[in-house]
Amino acid sequence: MRRSSAETKAVILAAARERFAADGYDKATIRAIAADARIDPAMVMRYFGTKEKLFAAAAEFDLELPELAPDQAGAGLVRHFLRKWEADEGLQVLLRTGVTNEAAAERMRTIFGGQVMPLVIGLTGDPERAPLRASLVASQLLGLALSRYILKFPPMVAATEEELIAWLSPTVQRYLTE
Amino acid sequence: MRRSSAETKAVILAAARERFAADGYDKATIRAIAADARIDPAMVMRYFGTKEKLFAAAAEFDLELPELAPDQAGAGLVRHFLRKWEADEGLQVLLRTGVTNEAAAERMRTIFGGQVMPLVIGLTGDPERAPLRASLVASQLLGLALSRYILKFPPMVAATEEELIAWLSPTVQRYLTE
Repeated sequence: MRRSSAETKAVILAAARERFAADGYDKATIRAIAADARIDPAMVMRYFGTKEKLFAAAAEFDLELPELAPDQAGAGLVRHFLRKWEADEGLQVLLRTGVTNEAAAERMRTIFGGQVMPLVIGLTGDPERAPLRASLVASQLLGLALSRYILKFPPMVAATEEELIAWLSPTVQRYLTE
Repeated sequence: MRRSSAETKAVILAAARERFAADGYDKATIRAIAADARIDPAMVMRYFGTKEKLFAAAAEFDLELPELAPDQAGAGLVRHFLRKWEADEGLQVLLRTGVTNEAAAERMRTIFGGQVMPLVIGLTGDPERAPLRASLVASQLLGLALSRYILKFPPMVAATEEELIAWLSPTVQRYLTE
């Protein structure tokens, strides 16, 4: 069975996401990723060039924030974040690697600064405090991901999406607008 | 200069904390820790036995929660957590390694479950929802540590202790008691 190059790239990226998330940036090797994908390491290099570029592709992530009504922004953002986390492995890769790798941490800063801040300014018309508000929102949303999906605190794992939204949305709403 | 065995152990532990925090559990080696501490690897093994036991000693951590007045519990807990983080590297080691190592994640669950939950029960007299409340508190406090000390979002780094307490204490107070 021959695969198209798009299929091959997708297989490599899926293996790279798992490997970077499990091992961190430094420890994950092209060789191990190629073995997971059952592809020759030279082929991985041909498609992605370097480990840095493969990581950038594996951790590519856009929050894709939707339009949010001002009084529903907290609830909407918590719901969107939970679904995004479960649907898109890029954010998982970034959070797991960002803890020990400065390049991944820098991408987190760019994503949350660059994408949540305009939302805050749109909601509040207050550019001065928007950077801090966006970071406070990130602190709660990333703490949610950390405790539910990575450290797996049993009550956070057991909670339904609606329960988490009910508890967290007043927090996020306050950081965004109050 | 000869060191006492207590001094030698302290030097090894300091090196181990830095190494485990920077590299994660799997990648950190006894050899590298010994080199950092300028001590023979055999001496590290003599004092600590195994890498697992060295890690357990390096990541030893007690939240040491103080008595908190019910209406000041949120502010008191945020202040205590910030000071504890800066004074005690055990928690930093646990958070950085817990992201890729299940044993460290398990210790985090034990610490936050075992130490925050009794506080919640004392404040609310509500054992049924105490596990979820304790986990919600952990999600915000660990998200604070992640965004301020690990991912280093600039506004979180720049914020003073009092600003962070002012923003976060209503959140923690609500998770604890409301």
